[in-house]
Amino acid sequence: MKLKYMLEEKSGWLTGEGPSLEVVISSRIRLARNLSEYLFPNKSQEDQQKQVFKLITEAVKKSNYFKNAAILRLNDLEKVDRQLLMERHLVSFEHARGKGERGIIIGDKEIISIMINEEDHLRIQALQPGFQLSEVWDFITRIDDELSKYLDYAFSEEWGYLTSCPTNTGTGIRASVLIHLPGLVITGEINKVLEALSKLGLAARGLYGEGTRVMGDFFQISNQVTLCQTEENIIDNIERVVKQIIGYELKAREMLKKDTMEENYDRVYRAYGILKNARTISFVEAMELLSKVRLGVDIGIDLGVDIGILNELMIFTQPAHLQESSGKILDPHERDILRAKFIREKLS
Amino acid sequence: MKLKYMLEEKSGWLTGEGPSLEVVISSRIRLARNLSEYLFPNKSQEDQQKQVFKLITEAVKKSNYFKNAAILRLNDLEKVDRQLLMERHLVSFEHARGKGERGIIIGDKEIISIMINEEDHLRIQALQPGFQLSEVWDFITRIDDELSKYLDYAFSEEWGYLTSCPTNTGTGIRASVLIHLPGLVITGEINKVLEALSKLGLAARGLYGEGTRVMGDFFQISNQVTLCQTEENIIDNIERVVKQIIGYELKAREMLKKDTMEENYDRVYRAYGILKNARTISFVEAMELLSKVRLGVDIGIDLGVDIGILNELMIFTQPAHLQESSGKILDPHERDILRAKFIREKLS
Repeated sequence: MKLKYMLEEKSGWLTGEGPSLEVVISSRIRLARNLSEYLFPNKSQEDQQKQVFKLITEAVKKSNYFKNAAILRLNDLEKVDRQLLMERHLVSFEHARGKGERGIIIGDKEIISIMINEEDHLRIQALQPGFQLSEVWDFITRIDDELSKYLDYAFSEEWGYLTSCPTNTGTGIRASVLIHLPGLVITGEINKVLEALSKLGLAARGLYGEGTRVMGDFFQISNQVTLCQTEENIIDNIERVVKQIIGYELKAREMLKKDTMEENYDRVYRAYGILKNARTISFVEAMELLSKVRLGVDIGIDLGVDIGILNELMIFTQPAHLQESSGKILDPHERDILRAKFIREKLS
Repeated sequence: MKLKYMLEEKSGWLTGEGPSLEVVISSRIRLARNLSEYLFPNKSQEDQQKQVFKLITEAVKKSNYFKNAAILRLNDLEKVDRQLLMERHLVSFEHARGKGERGIIIGDKEIISIMINEEDHLRIQALQPGFQLSEVWDFITRIDDELSKYLDYAFSEEWGYLTSCPTNTGTGIRASVLIHLPGLVITGEINKVLEALSKLGLAARGLYGEGTRVMGDFFQISNQVTLCQTEENIIDNIERVVKQIIGYELKAREMLKKDTMEENYDRVYRAYGILKNARTISFVEAMELLSKVRLGVDIGIDLGVDIGILNELMIFTQPAHLQESSGKILDPHERDILRAKFIREKLS
């Protein structure tokens, strides 16, 4: 357990401050990049992967954006540490469990990070609280430009950036927001929204991205298409759609407020009462309840809990976080008990 | 709403003090008696019923056991008042909704009461907290003896006391305990116990007696047979069986304590958390949750709540009690809101 120190510091995107934070938890952009002259990670041997690892870390060390960055070899880490990185949204599920010479570079406050030798040689990620994709884009594009000075990116005039999977080729961009839609879920409007999204070329996924389940009414909305569009167009499109969804969500919450005041309050207070009192609780249930409490805070119910605490609970009650904090591997039953205790303490 | 004053004073059996109170809420005996020379209530005309009413109330006024007793004509009461009496376990469902000249006499602290012209001319009832059927018998038999001096009971040397329904003929006695069996319910042992009961000539019913549902793991256990046995034998039998059930229940609670400490605590604290926070709650759900909290208090979890408060909540959160306290007829939705508020205030 080498990453316990990561529990000491909150991720920058957990601050509980940012535009439209009552609906959008965070905005993220990742860029897929590869080095020319090197096979894609899933086709290359370990010595090639090691060379790629070395080239990227050398470039990063020259960068102004990665001062004091942590550079970690995933093979040096225990499973629980790799899971912690995943829970922190710094590495993907596949990267955490993969093989070969994989790495992760983590910049200040986890705002910027790079997965090395995931599906592509580089997956550069920038993350900010609230709804601010344009700002994240301005930031990550500067980093990308700087790194391109030190790294020879695989780029084709015809296709754009070349990537391991063709769905990423072109801009190599995936822009996403983590969005909280309890109003649309409760009023039953969510399915209409999800259908419309897919028609607009956007995907809605679970908490940890592709292939993961939706918990606590938190959705990741991201672009599907990366080709034949500029990055600005892609971001404009998702920003426009998310702005609409925010509008629908706020309307749904307004409806909830008016229609059945007590039932609305009841839902929030019961969730709060259980979280404050439970002695054992699964992560999924905790997320469902935190979602309701979050909705309560957002619609102005005074529980004396701020959004920052709720964000922290979402992250720190995950299995690897609990295990790092206790300094030992716990079975699911023990984790459920520790999770309940942690939540009680944070809410009291 | 004439009975609002009854909210001011707790029933004597709600004190939260009594033998084996961690399992047995209350012990009750009722005697069915009829006046000779008068038709049973369901066969008689109103003028006869009125004469019976008069004879009984005159007898009661001479009695030492009914000083300051309230004598009420059910036809003088609104529906909500009659329901209040039922919720207080002073009249039966049938008596509250019946026709004709019906009455209820309520002695000091509701320990002793008489229904007039229910199924029989008199249904004398005595009620005490905890497990003390013998004491209740000693008490009620003195009252019965005294009343028999002033009233000409219908009695046959061959059959004993004559009653409207043959199942009550003989002793006319029904002895019952209101017993809380969450341990047996949680461990799944309850069905075995209920089967055994019926073989032993005992019945297990819901909270309001015959034909009512079991809520919150509260059962009324009573004798079925009234004929060919002395009252003492009947009471001995039920006491013996209930003593065994108490033993099983305590064993089940002991098991719960040992096996899964956190889950056990979890169940109790979650119930407590919901009761302390809900904004709307049905009576059935409140009973289920109060049952869990009660179990918690009984097994020594310190919630700062005493059994007296829990007893009070069981009674005062019933629909008619809520309506009397608010001074108006409420629809179910309004009652659920008021109930939640009442519970929050009592537990805080």
